Amino acid sequence: MSFPDTVLLDYGSGGKASQRLISELFLKHFDNATLNRLDDAAMLDLSGPLAVSTDSFTVDPLFFPGGDIGSLAIHGTVNDVAMLGARPMYLSCAMIVEEGLPFSTLEAVVRSMAEASRHAGAQIVTGDTKVVPKGAVDKLFINTTGLGLVQTASPPQGDRARPGDAILLTGTMGDHGLTILSQRQGLEFETPVQSDSAALNHMLLDLVESVGEVHVLRDPTRGGLATTLNEIALQSNLGFVIEEKAVPVSDAVRSGCSFLGLDPLYLANEGKAICIVPEERLDAALACLRSHDEGRQACRVGTVTEDHPGKVVLQTPIGGKRLLDMLEGEQLPRIC
Amino acid sequence: MSFPDTVLLDYGSGGKASQRLISELFLKHFDNATLNRLDDAAMLDLSGPLAVSTDSFTVDPLFFPGGDIGSLAIHGTVNDVAMLGARPMYLSCAMIVEEGLPFSTLEAVVRSMAEASRHAGAQIVTGDTKVVPKGAVDKLFINTTGLGLVQTASPPQGDRARPGDAILLTGTMGDHGLTILSQRQGLEFETPVQSDSAALNHMLLDLVESVGEVHVLRDPTRGGLATTLNEIALQSNLGFVIEEKAVPVSDAVRSGCSFLGLDPLYLANEGKAICIVPEERLDAALACLRSHDEGRQACRVGTVTEDHPGKVVLQTPIGGKRLLDMLEGEQLPRIC
Repeated sequence: MSFPDTVLLDYGSGGKASQRLISELFLKHFDNATLNRLDDAAMLDLSGPLAVSTDSFTVDPLFFPGGDIGSLAIHGTVNDVAMLGARPMYLSCAMIVEEGLPFSTLEAVVRSMAEASRHAGAQIVTGDTKVVPKGAVDKLFINTTGLGLVQTASPPQGDRARPGDAILLTGTMGDHGLTILSQRQGLEFETPVQSDSAALNHMLLDLVESVGEVHVLRDPTRGGLATTLNEIALQSNLGFVIEEKAVPVSDAVRSGCSFLGLDPLYLANEGKAICIVPEERLDAALACLRSHDEGRQACRVGTVTEDHPGKVVLQTPIGGKRLLDMLEGEQLPRIC
Repeated sequence: MSFPDTVLLDYGSGGKASQRLISELFLKHFDNATLNRLDDAAMLDLSGPLAVSTDSFTVDPLFFPGGDIGSLAIHGTVNDVAMLGARPMYLSCAMIVEEGLPFSTLEAVVRSMAEASRHAGAQIVTGDTKVVPKGAVDKLFINTTGLGLVQTASPPQGDRARPGDAILLTGTMGDHGLTILSQRQGLEFETPVQSDSAALNHMLLDLVESVGEVHVLRDPTRGGLATTLNEIALQSNLGFVIEEKAVPVSDAVRSGCSFLGLDPLYLANEGKAICIVPEERLDAALACLRSHDEGRQACRVGTVTEDHPGKVVLQTPIGGKRLLDMLEGEQLPRIC
């Protein structure tokens, strides 16, 4: 490779240096027939209904236990597409790079994106690269937009929860949030924590296809489980009752949270989903989720009710109840 | 509106403050049934073939004569989609906002995006907002990704130029580039310059439909006309001959460029297209382009040839020839 040690402004110029960056870095790793055409737009032979979702990733640090900004940018977007019961097929990738970023850092991120997109089964078909002067952006921000084919006639949506439905989680809460927070603060715990960043699309598609009726799918990212459940309760105009002790939290996250005075229910997750299914499909849903690596610890955590519409109530282990409110402000910026 | 004077980190949290920002700013201005659902992804009933394109906008300053980062983010992406002979229909909008940005600035940009997208006939159906701490980004960056329906069985593409084809421009060169440069340097010219930022999709769709055979459409943005022509010549593996005096340049841009020692053929444009059509469709193409406001000054500037494949040759007014090379490095960062 004929690149200098750091990314220069020239690489975002649209001129020869840009061309080299595109062909020797992006095409090398993202290689596919659609992207390789290098037209202003990618042409896709895709017939809907389609799900489309966009996300910008500004996570700090760029690399963390369990992932990096590149894999996170793929997982975050394919997961959002999958939440509508869609198969993520195509991705765009737009990078904003700070002048002076080590070239090896950029290449490591690109390689990680390539691997994560292959694993998710989605192609990166179009992109954009801007290089901005030192100080105009902190190191590297990535936007991905995903496009998927909806696989069911009645896709899961936030307003489709029904009274009596079972509320499931696909795994433990708080891993990503606590990992980023501890990296940023330079904290080390006895049991190391690791981000749960993962592509859920294969598992969720299996769920939608094998269980049939899946009313709601949503990933509890920024704001955590508490905030996301409140969003769904509001959209569906129903109440949710959650058993606090049923919510899976790893020992490492539990002890880290109690050390820092944090509630894992408000911490971000990047490889977990909330699934709301009719009570009679509960066993089938759990069996399906648990048959996938990403869903081994899937479990039921609560029930949808007609009481207290728009509110989430937590049943505490000592028999009490408390309102589980949305996160109000910012717990930790640049978590994703 | 119940917002403070500046954007706080809380507005990117995913919590209550984010919800207010979304409902009271974005939904208010971008209002449409798909976006209003607020699911993780937007569902679109769209059947291909599709054109999809992504672009991040980092322009500095945010507001400039002839436009702002918001309208530019719409125009840039709908134009890229239109270059494949597609009708841009849906857009995503992902904002990265610096903590402390005046709220009135954000609202002005959002209002401008709403107006530009209405004019272009494309809906903003999904989005994302990140607020990052002061210093992690310079004011405001926007990513838009566009989705369009390809309107022709033989869409224009960069490798479809043919020997003998006529090369057309839809208008003057260099307006956007010189405008941003003069704003950044605090220069004032006798005749003020203004960005040409505009949505070309209605005109180009008319061209594709009425002229039938349009071989290549591309907008000469970063790197300007010279760089973009070189890209197409390489993709088509043919030579281009351009008559220098036929290339339209406004008096204001010409005098500004000669004052600064710049070549308008390397300056960015944000509301112009290169159109390559068979010689026999030239008159029809010019008549169509000139019937639109954005194409009043459309003219032929050159011819595709089998000589010197992959190269662009400029015929100078005094009868000479010179190779018009790609821009090598960065002329002006953050032009778009």
